[in-house]
Amino acid sequence: MAELRKDPITGRWVIISTERGKRPVSFVRQSVVAQDKTNCPFCYGAEAKTPPEILVYGRNGNEANTPGWAVRVVPNKFPALGIEGELDKEGEGIFDKMNGIGAHEVIVETPDHEATLATLPERAVEDVLWAYRDRMLDLKNDRRFRYVLIFKNHGEAAGASVEHPHSQLIALPIVPKQVREEVDSCWHYYQEKERCIFCDIIRQERDSGARVIGENEHLITISPYAPRFPFEMWILPKEHGSSFENNQRPVYTALARMIKEMLARLDAVLDRPAYNLMIHTSPIGEEGNEHYHWHIEIIPKLTKIAGFEWGTGFYINPTPPEEAARFLREAEISALEK
Amino acid sequence: MAELRKDPITGRWVIISTERGKRPVSFVRQSVVAQDKTNCPFCYGAEAKTPPEILVYGRNGNEANTPGWAVRVVPNKFPALGIEGELDKEGEGIFDKMNGIGAHEVIVETPDHEATLATLPERAVEDVLWAYRDRMLDLKNDRRFRYVLIFKNHGEAAGASVEHPHSQLIALPIVPKQVREEVDSCWHYYQEKERCIFCDIIRQERDSGARVIGENEHLITISPYAPRFPFEMWILPKEHGSSFENNQRPVYTALARMIKEMLARLDAVLDRPAYNLMIHTSPIGEEGNEHYHWHIEIIPKLTKIAGFEWGTGFYINPTPPEEAARFLREAEISALEK
Repeated sequence: MAELRKDPITGRWVIISTERGKRPVSFVRQSVVAQDKTNCPFCYGAEAKTPPEILVYGRNGNEANTPGWAVRVVPNKFPALGIEGELDKEGEGIFDKMNGIGAHEVIVETPDHEATLATLPERAVEDVLWAYRDRMLDLKNDRRFRYVLIFKNHGEAAGASVEHPHSQLIALPIVPKQVREEVDSCWHYYQEKERCIFCDIIRQERDSGARVIGENEHLITISPYAPRFPFEMWILPKEHGSSFENNQRPVYTALARMIKEMLARLDAVLDRPAYNLMIHTSPIGEEGNEHYHWHIEIIPKLTKIAGFEWGTGFYINPTPPEEAARFLREAEISALEK
Repeated sequence: MAELRKDPITGRWVIISTERGKRPVSFVRQSVVAQDKTNCPFCYGAEAKTPPEILVYGRNGNEANTPGWAVRVVPNKFPALGIEGELDKEGEGIFDKMNGIGAHEVIVETPDHEATLATLPERAVEDVLWAYRDRMLDLKNDRRFRYVLIFKNHGEAAGASVEHPHSQLIALPIVPKQVREEVDSCWHYYQEKERCIFCDIIRQERDSGARVIGENEHLITISPYAPRFPFEMWILPKEHGSSFENNQRPVYTALARMIKEMLARLDAVLDRPAYNLMIHTSPIGEEGNEHYHWHIEIIPKLTKIAGFEWGTGFYINPTPPEEAARFLREAEISALEK
């Protein structure tokens, strides 16, 4: 018998196949392996192929837009939104529109074309997190923006068009409805209980243990109770915090270690799958609050979204999160990756 | 400059690339063409490969589960939900769950393995619509169910695992959040204006004409103002109606003609793309109302959903709906397909 489970934050129900849980080997997919660095726009020496850099780490005084960097942030060459101009909000009869103003940047995570966040040294992953933070703090000064999303598409199946390791950032002039609903749902819970719902979930998950994948001094990673996708993972800070960008340094160090370890576990269990990684944080201007708990969601690309999902918003997940957590927890990864 | 547009029903914003609108030829995809009927579980003679039929048209008195049928409805052999049992709703600490009770059926649209809804005779498409309706009416008698979704995954990229032409039906014990929100949004609009929002949209679209793809005596097809996907189409009844299953016969006849024509236009413009088709109708027990307007959504599978969409619920649509509508409206289709 399948089970219907409700995500307490979004109110979204999912169908979990509890009987015939689909095992890692039975998902048909292609491993993500860098194939070809010819003409790569993100490798050393190709700096002129991107718009001029916005932020760079590690170049040590050499000329801008030359090799030698460790992390490099540039505007997206084909941005979804344009950085120049005003919003010019207007109606069109019953419809509403505004100019597509926003920032769309690329964070090139390393000069190493073949590395991944799972194989990079811990310190290099931490640098990527600092770049995320620096760009968020800078963009929050632009009064046109209301939300900054940082995300990563790993592998072509997950939407990556360039294979060189990179993340993306989009700053938006409105708070997306989905983000608004998530934050508001947490606010309502807090009004009722004087507690953060994520803090409550973390307490319950630690007590039960069945869906915990890993834990370090600052963070815990779980398979959520009602995941949309098989092997979905959430990385949460154990101490309440409402924004990604306002943490103390030890949190970023621990987060780098956790991301690296979790992606290594994912690679081990699912043989280097494509995935999307998204940072969920508070909207601009609402950073310090007691109700919202920033976190990272990682969803491997294993199943297809089809008519049922589009028509209902329901998801059918063929692998119970308890089984997914066990596979990920028990994965053999080398000491180096831990 | 891109444009941000808001869908007035869901409140969802999308990013429309208005400058460099992506043309049909520039989407990379595989044409959906039936390859191989060997071992097809839905062809004549394979009736024993499916669970026993629930509904059949056209067999004229011959034995059940034998060839000779025109449309055949069977339970899904690998159902997402089970039909037997009670819901047994319960809590698990902070979480909520219930048994996965529901119906999951397959509507085999024709015995012809190589046909599609675009190439079948109009009368055969109408039979498929009657089968949808008959099954919905029957399932609405089961007091455990609150919503019935009818959908079609056409082509492997859209999630189809069997290539023989078929649709699916899932009856759910709860009204999906996404459906609830859509219906409630229409209700709020009606409370404020005493008018159906879809009726208002149809009026405005007919006046402007820019996003109208086609129209017949009972239905109109448009590219919506804020579509999530390139070449997304909505087929709407011109006269207000809140449920798919409670129409007069001439509406189904006209709808069969419209579906066939629109899918032929889609095939012509995008060279037989994979697509999902979903019927949006009122939840069970709310069928007769003034605020909700049933309709059909068709989304060709051309773009990938990636981290940005998962993290925000925003969509980036590279083809403005006005351009998509023009391509579809001007497509050359044979008189037979019209």
